[in-house]
Amino acid sequence: MPVGTQGAVKAVTPAQLAEIAPEVILGNTYHLGLRPGGEQVARLGGLHRFMGWEGPILTDSGGFQVFSLSSLRRVEEDGVTFASHLDGSRHFLSPERSMEIQRQLGSDIVMAFDECPPGGTARAELERSVARTTRWLARCRACELAPHQGLFAILQGGTQLDLRREHLDRILELDARTPFQGFAVGGLSVGEPKAEMEATLAALVKELPGDRARYLMGVGTPEDLLSGIAQGVDLFDCVLPTREARHGRLLTSRGRLNIKNARHREADLPLDPDCACYTCRSFSRAYLHHLFRAGEPLASTLNTIHNLSYTVGLTRNARRALLETRFEDFARRTREAWTTEEP
Amino acid sequence: MPVGTQGAVKAVTPAQLAEIAPEVILGNTYHLGLRPGGEQVARLGGLHRFMGWEGPILTDSGGFQVFSLSSLRRVEEDGVTFASHLDGSRHFLSPERSMEIQRQLGSDIVMAFDECPPGGTARAELERSVARTTRWLARCRACELAPHQGLFAILQGGTQLDLRREHLDRILELDARTPFQGFAVGGLSVGEPKAEMEATLAALVKELPGDRARYLMGVGTPEDLLSGIAQGVDLFDCVLPTREARHGRLLTSRGRLNIKNARHREADLPLDPDCACYTCRSFSRAYLHHLFRAGEPLASTLNTIHNLSYTVGLTRNARRALLETRFEDFARRTREAWTTEEP
Repeated sequence: MPVGTQGAVKAVTPAQLAEIAPEVILGNTYHLGLRPGGEQVARLGGLHRFMGWEGPILTDSGGFQVFSLSSLRRVEEDGVTFASHLDGSRHFLSPERSMEIQRQLGSDIVMAFDECPPGGTARAELERSVARTTRWLARCRACELAPHQGLFAILQGGTQLDLRREHLDRILELDARTPFQGFAVGGLSVGEPKAEMEATLAALVKELPGDRARYLMGVGTPEDLLSGIAQGVDLFDCVLPTREARHGRLLTSRGRLNIKNARHREADLPLDPDCACYTCRSFSRAYLHHLFRAGEPLASTLNTIHNLSYTVGLTRNARRALLETRFEDFARRTREAWTTEEP
Repeated sequence: MPVGTQGAVKAVTPAQLAEIAPEVILGNTYHLGLRPGGEQVARLGGLHRFMGWEGPILTDSGGFQVFSLSSLRRVEEDGVTFASHLDGSRHFLSPERSMEIQRQLGSDIVMAFDECPPGGTARAELERSVARTTRWLARCRACELAPHQGLFAILQGGTQLDLRREHLDRILELDARTPFQGFAVGGLSVGEPKAEMEATLAALVKELPGDRARYLMGVGTPEDLLSGIAQGVDLFDCVLPTREARHGRLLTSRGRLNIKNARHREADLPLDPDCACYTCRSFSRAYLHHLFRAGEPLASTLNTIHNLSYTVGLTRNARRALLETRFEDFARRTREAWTTEEP
């Protein structure tokens, strides 16, 4: 899922995004709740109409951003009081308030409001946090959503497998009463060693109900997509493809390249010869190098179109390979084509 | 003509530009000559292919920018030595060098290399400058261009009508030997009083040969387009629509508006109800206000699409009105619809 933090996937229009054709895009409850505000988006007909995106939208709950972006947090059983990263103004977010904002936004997939402790949080603190996230999940479940909205639960517990399993048991108890539409693994890719993240995933994803979507939050390098998919993950989101694009760092079928490097100055060939996106169909690396060096805003747009096309295309091809029971071969070939030298 | 200074119309793709459908776009010899360089663009197949624009391109000669952007100028009969605004490096531009770069760029309309003194230049200095521009024009004419390229002469002389007329006589002498494809009025809209600019235009445009294009350089407010067209001008270029767009200042059929004003925060209506551009078809003022306030790069793109659509549409409608001999009525109605209050 491309990330549209503030109601726009950075530097691309909905028409350009429709050509890339992601199945879902993501919006942020924290950002949109602060500006322009859930009430304002509701008055304007909901997030789909506001931003001109007809496809499905997932909104996160604001939990992650409250802990990563805001300051002056006070976490209590009722919810979190925090200071806006925009102007320092005081706000409150809770399970009920997060559900209310997401109902106002009118997204299709609503994420539960959770506590998201950083990697390396001590065991006792992590236990308290997971217990609170469980109680918050029950409160989210009790809130009314619009008929088209489905709620996803979020599994926390850092890299402590026993804690994750216990949390999953509690989630599945709630699920037995009223089913969730999907299950997310949160609190990974937050600074823990990569091997620990992979071990946690390998143990847990297969324990999530297979008849509902399995979503790995905040993950999106091509390498991590392949290993997540191999574990059974269905959904990912990450700012990496869009953010890297704006810095001239491009993902290709032959590996990564930095368009501002001098070696691309005279290169009369597409970014990625295996890519059929608008950027690769229409422009040379030399032109993209020039735009980036010249500080042209079009550089961000063209680079974003490519990075999103590459990433969405990778998941689309992986899905097809899975359906044709040749995923391992696909993943191996894909990895082998990535050179360590700049292509 | 939308301005694509560095080989890109700022913040829009060629595909978006094609929907706006300007008949010609403009590229800058000064900028492209410095970066990426005329030789480099030629190696990459010329400016059309480099930037992905199949329609006609006009390139200016670099004369104006050498005098307005660079520093350390030494103007001699042979040409101008100047320091690049990018890195201070020393460069030389002359009639022959400007023609060479424009041949390398492969534009369709090539502008003569002229001296462009600022508004208010003393009479004696202006006379010397115009005489040199005449000699430079003969040298431009003597240069070989590609078969598809046409050369436009540039009429200088500030607001001194007799000097302009004398310059025009010299230009027409050259034209009698080898016809120019068009005639531009330069050196206006450079700080002189508006009434003087209009008086100069009113006297001169009708003396330019009516069977070739008449181009008023650097002019582009909606008001100035209407009065230029009334005088018989066929072509204009200006950074105003694109630059104003990036600052949130929008041109509409009801007058100008500033999208960051609070009054647009809740406005669930298009920028311009009479406009059919992608931006006006797809988004509310409230959304555009949000994007601009949030610093989203998409704000520049959507605002640019609208301002260019409005401006190109204005000239297209003016042309139709001229062909149907109802231009005065069209111009009056257009002006009347512009409110002084923000629409």
